[in-house]
Amino acid sequence: MPKTFLIGLDFGSESARGALIDVASGREGAYHAHPYRHGIMTSALPGGRPLPLGFALQDAADYLEAAEVILSAIGAGRNVAAIGVDFTASSPLPALGDGRAMSELMPDEPHAYVKLWKHAAAQPYAEAINRRGGAFLSNFGGRVSGEWLLAKAAEIAAAAPEVWRRADKFIEAGDWLVWRLTGREARSLDFAAYKAQFSASGGYPDGIAEGLAEKLSLPQPVGSAAGQLSEEWRRRTGIRGEAVVAVAAIDSHAVLPAVGACRPGVLAGALGTSAAYLLLDDEDRPLPAGVEGRAKGAALPGLWCYEAGQAAFGDVLAWFVRTFPRASDLSANFAAYNREAAALAPGENRLVAVDWWNGNRVPYADKALRGLIAGFDLSTSATEIYRALMDSICFGARLIVDQFRDAQAPVERVVLTSGLAKSNPFLLTIMADVLGETVHAPVIDNPTCVGAAIHGAVAAGLVPGFAAGAERFGARRFEACEPDPAREAAYARIYREYRSLSASAEVRQGVRARF
Amino acid sequence: MPKTFLIGLDFGSESARGALIDVASGREGAYHAHPYRHGIMTSALPGGRPLPLGFALQDAADYLEAAEVILSAIGAGRNVAAIGVDFTASSPLPALGDGRAMSELMPDEPHAYVKLWKHAAAQPYAEAINRRGGAFLSNFGGRVSGEWLLAKAAEIAAAAPEVWRRADKFIEAGDWLVWRLTGREARSLDFAAYKAQFSASGGYPDGIAEGLAEKLSLPQPVGSAAGQLSEEWRRRTGIRGEAVVAVAAIDSHAVLPAVGACRPGVLAGALGTSAAYLLLDDEDRPLPAGVEGRAKGAALPGLWCYEAGQAAFGDVLAWFVRTFPRASDLSANFAAYNREAAALAPGENRLVAVDWWNGNRVPYADKALRGLIAGFDLSTSATEIYRALMDSICFGARLIVDQFRDAQAPVERVVLTSGLAKSNPFLLTIMADVLGETVHAPVIDNPTCVGAAIHGAVAAGLVPGFAAGAERFGARRFEACEPDPAREAAYARIYREYRSLSASAEVRQGVRARF
Repeated sequence: MPKTFLIGLDFGSESARGALIDVASGREGAYHAHPYRHGIMTSALPGGRPLPLGFALQDAADYLEAAEVILSAIGAGRNVAAIGVDFTASSPLPALGDGRAMSELMPDEPHAYVKLWKHAAAQPYAEAINRRGGAFLSNFGGRVSGEWLLAKAAEIAAAAPEVWRRADKFIEAGDWLVWRLTGREARSLDFAAYKAQFSASGGYPDGIAEGLAEKLSLPQPVGSAAGQLSEEWRRRTGIRGEAVVAVAAIDSHAVLPAVGACRPGVLAGALGTSAAYLLLDDEDRPLPAGVEGRAKGAALPGLWCYEAGQAAFGDVLAWFVRTFPRASDLSANFAAYNREAAALAPGENRLVAVDWWNGNRVPYADKALRGLIAGFDLSTSATEIYRALMDSICFGARLIVDQFRDAQAPVERVVLTSGLAKSNPFLLTIMADVLGETVHAPVIDNPTCVGAAIHGAVAAGLVPGFAAGAERFGARRFEACEPDPAREAAYARIYREYRSLSASAEVRQGVRARF
Repeated sequence: MPKTFLIGLDFGSESARGALIDVASGREGAYHAHPYRHGIMTSALPGGRPLPLGFALQDAADYLEAAEVILSAIGAGRNVAAIGVDFTASSPLPALGDGRAMSELMPDEPHAYVKLWKHAAAQPYAEAINRRGGAFLSNFGGRVSGEWLLAKAAEIAAAAPEVWRRADKFIEAGDWLVWRLTGREARSLDFAAYKAQFSASGGYPDGIAEGLAEKLSLPQPVGSAAGQLSEEWRRRTGIRGEAVVAVAAIDSHAVLPAVGACRPGVLAGALGTSAAYLLLDDEDRPLPAGVEGRAKGAALPGLWCYEAGQAAFGDVLAWFVRTFPRASDLSANFAAYNREAAALAPGENRLVAVDWWNGNRVPYADKALRGLIAGFDLSTSATEIYRALMDSICFGARLIVDQFRDAQAPVERVVLTSGLAKSNPFLLTIMADVLGETVHAPVIDNPTCVGAAIHGAVAAGLVPGFAAGAERFGARRFEACEPDPAREAAYARIYREYRSLSASAEVRQGVRARF
């Protein structure tokens, strides 16, 4: 009997990645990545038409090319039981009823393309939505972001009415790709709830853009099947087998089952240039201040999932190392600063920093706030400042945990993933000491692809649910970093000063961006 | 008829300097400097005896050697009408009734030597004096410093009772030198008022150390004659003429007439590693918060003179340049940062810093406060930070001016002298814009020596007073730096934030030194 496989497809901002998982062993059998032909278009369309400031577009055709290349590379000739897909969000596009992207018809029209999550030009439309208000904002701290679907719909309706009129659908790229792979439109509740403010009780919000309701469709839960890989795609990729395709998921959510985050009380933090935190909960609680959103059953069936973040995390350290280089090579710079910073005891630098280099999300949700370093004397060294920045980004994480706990949401296990959790082990020890919690770093390759594959396994019925999928295909080993009582006590004192500085009205006025 | 000359002698921390001034032309005719043979003794006595931590001693014999070398070099064979002397303070020594320094008799006893102003080991004695309190503290913000005479007297009485018992005199080195030059003890009201808290109404404070009153002597005003150069010193130096020797003055005060600061409303700032400000006033007003002291008629006859300062000034910039070097050479580093910082408009860096790298004097008189920089974002550059530090040290100066004005003391003309006023012209433009005042930088060589010479001229009756002496022998040209209205308005906004941050209790807690 031939081996059976899962495929997880992870569509990021610059490229797509795919992993092939052996169902019997649970091990990864192959991996392939493919960059998007046109990358992120910020200055011009493929045909040369220049783009306004704040635009960040993608060409949906690039996704199809990447899917074909990756599925062929890892799946040709394989018996594939299921395919899961995750995607950046919100990255919606206008499309026709037959699934064609509007950009195929109108290649010189900017608003016909995918508006990538970081497309910023829709922000004024978000502000108009927020001013109008509505009950649908209550789970999102009273405001939608310009990065989300509703603002982008309003932008196209106002700025390109012809595109809006001709579009039968306005759809997340992840949902669109699943539609193209299966021939069946099956939208994900994950995108709909977090990025289009859909709720089971209220549906999609009204009054955002004329005809928007007709261009959306009712979503279905993650872990359900959208359909099977179409005949056309079987021909294009050589994939055999059932090839059940799961409804898509947001990339940052898809990783949860791969790192064992499937039950209430798990906080999963993704530590990269910025930091994103997801907390799973089983009760309906008020939204803590500055936490960006929450929805029930959208990231994982049956669970509330809160989203919170730090707008700059690794970026703060990278800023310092770039601004005050000691070697020509960035990674040598990091290594030197990290090595020397690790030799300092907590508080030995006599500094405290507030980590708002790119604004603050929790608790103030204020993009105009800026960073601060306090406590300089004439003997303060560059390494001591760098260590204060390491400390401060961990204090920012602690503040998010505190906000959750103040709202009675349980935080029982902290799992930290992504770049910095792997590349900077000393940062994890600071995090454990600052949180006063054991932090767990999963030892797993390509966890987001694995998470997508688990979505496929659940959709195909290979496992009874996400927890079982996590156990069978997710990380089997975690590196646990325990807090040290003495360092924890020292950091508790410095953190009190971080909180006091953060809470000071004079400080917030003093660090506000002045234009 | 032979030319007539003045001599100004300036005794600093590491060396003494002397200038010869032609009375007729008012021009400098010769200059000579001589380092002290034993410099500042912090680790051992000349005989090898090790010193405790916090000691900073000098050998009084070094002053005599320097005086002889300098007076011979510039004065031999000259017709010298008058000699003025200024000195660091408080730098007192125990002496016998015949003028011998106690260290001549007890060369292996640390407490027998001159305790230089920066000798720190007497600080606990200052704290005991301050705890006890007394009306004499009212002109000094309620506290004496461990650098001043009273604390050093208490230290010797407690730590070396044998030295204290045998000493007939406890005398400032400046007064002692004048005694040795003339054969007559004539103490200066300048030292007595600022460093020994003498006042015309209250005399010297009681109860500091047993027998102190007998070891001090009544002071006489600056600009009065102590006597004439003794026969012995005429033989040693070859000086001829009247050679009237003025009573000594504190070095930082002696400079005043040389830079035209002889009338109420003149603020003279000396901008070096730290900054010292003297404000002349003709009325009795309450001491503004954080201003260190004031006395009437002690620095200049008939005028109140307030002393205030910034504990770090040029040191803040030097810290940055040393911590984040761009070239191997310090002055090339400064040049590069200064050049790039000058290209920024006020506020363009979007930063505000508080200049407490070495504690704060005005308004908090709190050595434990530390510096702060607020407003970082991911594009903040090193040059922008350096500019924020330049701005902040000027804000610190503005705060001192504001404190004076809040106390109704007039600040009508700002004169800036010393190292940074000469070497960093861009800093003076920032100072003018931040103060919203024209700042005047005197163009004069060796102004402190010239100021001492003017003391001599007044004492010898060559001029009717200090204002006339300033006009005849002081700076004739000032470089005036005018504020620019647009930059002034921009800085007024940033200064408000500086004040708000400085006044915040959370900020002061957050920047407090933690040991």
